[in-house]
Amino acid sequence: MEQRMSLVTLGVADLARARGFYEALGWTTHAAPADDVVFFQAGGMIVALWGRAQLAEDSAVEDDGGWGGITLAHNVRSPAEVDAVLEEAERAGATIGRPGAETFWGGYSGVFVDPEGHPWEVAHNPHWTIEADGSVRLAS
Amino acid sequence: MEQRMSLVTLGVADLARARGFYEALGWTTHAAPADDVVFFQAGGMIVALWGRAQLAEDSAVEDDGGWGGITLAHNVRSPAEVDAVLEEAERAGATIGRPGAETFWGGYSGVFVDPEGHPWEVAHNPHWTIEADGSVRLAS
Repeated sequence: MEQRMSLVTLGVADLARARGFYEALGWTTHAAPADDVVFFQAGGMIVALWGRAQLAEDSAVEDDGGWGGITLAHNVRSPAEVDAVLEEAERAGATIGRPGAETFWGGYSGVFVDPEGHPWEVAHNPHWTIEADGSVRLAS
Repeated sequence: MEQRMSLVTLGVADLARARGFYEALGWTTHAAPADDVVFFQAGGMIVALWGRAQLAEDSAVEDDGGWGGITLAHNVRSPAEVDAVLEEAERAGATIGRPGAETFWGGYSGVFVDPEGHPWEVAHNPHWTIEADGSVRLAS
């Protein structure tokens, strides 16, 4: 199995609301308005929105509701950009789980929780490199 | 907020078991044996393993246990490769949630569930392009 992830699908209770949230963040999709799955090209991978019940069935898992042990992150190039993205997410309808602050690992981050309950850490990690195309590299 | 995801962190109950599983799939990390977080460079993004309780606290969410509405996927270049990756994952300790089979959307996929309960779809989608570097592109 190659060391890569192709797609992350976020199960949603309200697809229109979820799509509207990510579009309010400036994300664009070629999905038609009536499509029941929405794909976003996100760098070299894809982020999808799909009904949570359908996703659970398709994934061969039971849905207990709530959070299930996966957190997403969006890394940016400065602490100020962390605060700007958190503000943008809040305006778009997210809940701020943790405001931007210095972290124990020497960076700066905060957390927003999207309208479907999926948490995103927004982080500036001075030890990692963000390339011009947005890809992220661990310190070598 | 740029249209990209930098990091996906998988919360785990047993870090050594989880790390061993992904290493058995051939993934490599520069983490030290005693590190309490394990980072894998996965194409232009990063996949991390971290204690689930710590991740929940850091993510400002309650952990209800079980699955929480996020499914990962690993896309490959042929149906035969889907079956090969599922077999490899099962040998490494995964549970097969759904064996490889043709899908309603015209591709071929199956699901394995890692030892921590995180489902991965392994898929061949003939409508998408996998680049030489492993990145995935939606049909334009």
